[in-house]
Amino acid sequence: MPTIVVDVMPKPEILDPQGKAVSSALPRIGIEGFAQVRQGKRFELTVEGEVTEEVLAAARKAAETLLSNPVIEDVVSVAVEEV
Amino acid sequence: MPTIVVDVMPKPEILDPQGKAVSSALPRIGIEGFAQVRQGKRFELTVEGEVTEEVLAAARKAAETLLSNPVIEDVVSVAVEEV
Repeated sequence: MPTIVVDVMPKPEILDPQGKAVSSALPRIGIEGFAQVRQGKRFELTVEGEVTEEVLAAARKAAETLLSNPVIEDVVSVAVEEV
Repeated sequence: MPTIVVDVMPKPEILDPQGKAVSSALPRIGIEGFAQVRQGKRFELTVEGEVTEEVLAAARKAAETLLSNPVIEDVVSVAVEEV
């Protein structure tokens, strides 16, 4: 069945403690060269049947209302995953 | 600065309570047509300088060790984001 992937990230101006924690942990395990780490969410929505314009619109609505908090997060993409 | 995106998802055989919660909430806000929802993580690693093979190898190592728990999660992709 086809899958729609929704990516959600904290807005750039919002503090991201999880990303900060990862960022500080990297040098401790010997990994250097990254200026910043930000952590967001990835959702995989399995579609029943075909991906129509209606299904994509429903996924976009879900992304904006249920999957992200528009005050602190941005929906960075809503895309059909190629199999 | 270039960004490397790391996507991590719970393994298919692992219960995903967050995804289940989203899945049950969708019909309540009038959204139908999705058989399953799974929730994972998306990391954006900002690279200092250029993306070399070494930097990509470091990102892959970070993905396998710090950003995911290999017992319950899969790293689904480590990719340079096009700007």
